Amino acid sequence: MSSEYDSKMTPNLKKPRKTPILPNEIKCVLLQGYGSVRQMKAISIPRPIPSDGEVLIRVKSCGVNFLDLSIRQGLFSDLPKLPFVPGFECSGEIVQLGPNTPGFQIGERVICLPRFYAWSEYLVINCNQIYKIPDSMSYREAAALSYSYLTAYILLFEIGSIKIGQTVLFHSAGGGVGIALSQLSKLVPNIRTIATCSKSKFEILKNQVDFLLEENSDYVSEAKKICPEGVDLVLDCLSGDNTNKGISITKPLGKYIIYGTSKNLDGESKNYFALAKNWWHVDKISPIKLYEENRSLSGFNLHNFLFNQMFSSRRYIQDIFSKLFNLYRDGHIRPVIDSIHSFDDISLALARLQERKNIGKVIIEPYIDEENLTKDGQENINSSDTDGPDEPDCQDD
Amino acid sequence: MSSEYDSKMTPNLKKPRKTPILPNEIKCVLLQGYGSVRQMKAISIPRPIPSDGEVLIRVKSCGVNFLDLSIRQGLFSDLPKLPFVPGFECSGEIVQLGPNTPGFQIGERVICLPRFYAWSEYLVINCNQIYKIPDSMSYREAAALSYSYLTAYILLFEIGSIKIGQTVLFHSAGGGVGIALSQLSKLVPNIRTIATCSKSKFEILKNQVDFLLEENSDYVSEAKKICPEGVDLVLDCLSGDNTNKGISITKPLGKYIIYGTSKNLDGESKNYFALAKNWWHVDKISPIKLYEENRSLSGFNLHNFLFNQMFSSRRYIQDIFSKLFNLYRDGHIRPVIDSIHSFDDISLALARLQERKNIGKVIIEPYIDEENLTKDGQENINSSDTDGPDEPDCQDD
Repeated sequence: MSSEYDSKMTPNLKKPRKTPILPNEIKCVLLQGYGSVRQMKAISIPRPIPSDGEVLIRVKSCGVNFLDLSIRQGLFSDLPKLPFVPGFECSGEIVQLGPNTPGFQIGERVICLPRFYAWSEYLVINCNQIYKIPDSMSYREAAALSYSYLTAYILLFEIGSIKIGQTVLFHSAGGGVGIALSQLSKLVPNIRTIATCSKSKFEILKNQVDFLLEENSDYVSEAKKICPEGVDLVLDCLSGDNTNKGISITKPLGKYIIYGTSKNLDGESKNYFALAKNWWHVDKISPIKLYEENRSLSGFNLHNFLFNQMFSSRRYIQDIFSKLFNLYRDGHIRPVIDSIHSFDDISLALARLQERKNIGKVIIEPYIDEENLTKDGQENINSSDTDGPDEPDCQDD
Repeated sequence: MSSEYDSKMTPNLKKPRKTPILPNEIKCVLLQGYGSVRQMKAISIPRPIPSDGEVLIRVKSCGVNFLDLSIRQGLFSDLPKLPFVPGFECSGEIVQLGPNTPGFQIGERVICLPRFYAWSEYLVINCNQIYKIPDSMSYREAAALSYSYLTAYILLFEIGSIKIGQTVLFHSAGGGVGIALSQLSKLVPNIRTIATCSKSKFEILKNQVDFLLEENSDYVSEAKKICPEGVDLVLDCLSGDNTNKGISITKPLGKYIIYGTSKNLDGESKNYFALAKNWWHVDKISPIKLYEENRSLSGFNLHNFLFNQMFSSRRYIQDIFSKLFNLYRDGHIRPVIDSIHSFDDISLALARLQERKNIGKVIIEPYIDEENLTKDGQENINSSDTDGPDEPDCQDD
C-alpha cells in the first residue's frame, strides 16, 4: 500500500495548500483482542469522513505511551468496543474540514489528542482536540512532546509548584516524561534532580539529571543520603507498593504525586490477578497522618483529565501548549526521540517501552519516510525497518 | 499584684531603652490538670532567667487558638509534664538578653512562637523563636496575626498555590484563621470565596466572604450550586467525618487541605471515646482514587512544623512574616480582634472559642491595660473585666 499524497514532513516550510487527493483505504493499527502482542496489527480500513465540528488529519507521527500497554492488556476503564484503533497522541496536517470548523484551515500543522484512535494514517477528530504547532517544530518532535511535556509541565508547575532551590525526585529518567521532567525542572534556578533508571542508561543520562539512582534499588535510602532533610517533590509513575515508601522521603510541606501505575504492567498478557495484587499493596493513606506530618498526596492522570473532566480542560491545555511552544522556540526544551517504527512494527515499539529500553519517546508512523530520517533527530533515532518485525515471544490469551 | 515596669504599648514610638527593673514574681496561666476549665488558672510564679541563646520577653498580648482547647483536654501528643504554662504565641518586648544573643537588643518588639509557655507575663525564649515586628503594628495586632496569618498564608500560597480566578472554600469564616483567609485570598485577582459560619455572624461577615453558608448545613450541596464545576481549594479545619464529603467538591486538579481537627473538640472535658470515634470516621484515602480523579489531599499543622520539623522552618517562617509585615504596612491586611481578656479570665477566653462566638482573634493579656483599649482596635473589642470570670458550667474530670 502506498500513499497517494506524498507530503514532505519538513518544518519551516510554508506554501499554499490545496485540498489533497485522499485515498479510499488507509492504514491503521488495530487492537483486535486484549492480551498478546499478536492482537495489535497494522491493517487497512476505509478512510473516515469528518462530521460537524470535525476535521480530517493526515497523521505523520504518533506517540507511544506506557498507558498504551495497559490498553493492549485491557487494563483500562471505559475502553471502546473491540476492535478499535488505540493511541492518544499524534501530529499531522489538516487535509479536510467538516462543517462548522471556523479558525482551522487545510494545511495547518497540529497536535491531536483524541480519546483513542490516534494510530491511524488518517484521523477524524473534533476541533476541540487539536492544537496548532510552531512552524519550526517537526511532526516527530510534536508527537514526542504532546503527552510527555504536558504531563511533566502540569506535575512540576501546576500541581507541584516547584520553587527555586528545591529538590525533585522522579522515576524512569529515560522515558518520555522523564526526559521532559529533567528539561523542564532545569528552567527553575538551582533545582536539584534525583531520578532512577536502569544502570545501562547512566552514561547517556548523566548530564540530564543531578543524581542518578539505579531502578529497583532502595532508592529511598539512597535519596536520604543525598538529601537528608527530605525531597520537596516526588513524582511517581510506578505506584504499586512504592507509594508509602516514597512518601517517607518528602520533607515537611513536601508533595508526592502519583501520575502512573507502570508497576502493574510488568506482565506480557492481561493479568488481573497481578493487577489486583499490586493495587492491594497500594496502602490507603490516613488524612490525619498527612495533617500530622505536613505532607501532600496528589494524583494526576492526563487521559482522565482530558476526557472525563473535559469541561474546563481545552483552554487549560491550550495555555500550557502555548508556554511549551515558546520554550521550544527559545531552545529551552527539545523532545528526545528514542526510535521510530512503522505501524507494521507496532509490537517492536511496544516491546521497547515494556522492556524499559527507550531513552526518550518511542514514535510510530504509518510508513517511515526515509527522507525524514535525515531531518529529524538523526542522532538518536533507532528506526526499525518496515518489512515486518521479529515478533518477541508472546502468549495468547 | 502590680507591674513594676510600666511600659506603654504604643506603636510608632522609638526611644532609647534602659534595662528595666524586673519583678521577682510574675503572673502566668497554669494548666494544673487535663479536662475542666477549672484546671487552668492565673497564678504567680518566680521570674525565669534567660540562658545561652535566650532572651527574656515582657509579654504584652497572647493569642488563644483552637489548639489550646485540645491542650486543656490533654488531646495532644508530646505535652510537657503537668503543671505547665500553655500558649503558642504572644507579642512583647525584649527586656533581658542571655549570653550569645547577637542581633537582638533590649526594647525590641517581637512576636514569640514558643513550643508552649506563651501565656506568661515574662517569657524566656530562644532567639530562633522570635521575630521582630514593624513599629506601626500594635502588640495586640501582632499577637492576633502570628499563628492565624502564618497558617492562612501557607495554606493559600504555599500549599494551595491559589491563582487568579479560582474559588476557595473554608470553614469558620469568623475565626482568626477565617478572617486571615478572607483578607489574604482577596490579594489574588478575581478569587471567589465560599465559607461557612454560624447564621448569627452572616451580617458582620457579609463583606468579607463572597458566599456565606450556614455551618452544619449541607455545605457540599450548597457549594455545588454556587460552583457546579467544583472548587479549586478546600481548607478544612473541622476534619472529623467531613473530609471525604469535602473532597468530592474539589474540581479536577483541585486541592483539599486539612489544617485542623476542631470537630474533635466539641466536648467540654477530655473525651477519648469521642475523639477515637471521630478519628475513625476520617476514612482513609486511596492514592489510586486520587490518581483516577486528579485530586490532591494535604495536611498542614503549624505547631508540628515549627517544633517537630524545625530544621528548616526558621528561615521559612521569617520569610513569610516579612511578606505579612509588608502587607500590613501597605494596609492590605488588618488583624481583627474579637475580644481581650486578662489572664484571670482565661476560662471566658477559651469558652468564646469553644462556643464559636468569636469574630476574629481572642486575645489574653497579663493585665488589661485600659490605656491600650483606646488605641488598639477599639471598635471590635469586647474586653472582659479583670475581677474574675463567671465561670461557665463545667465538669471536673
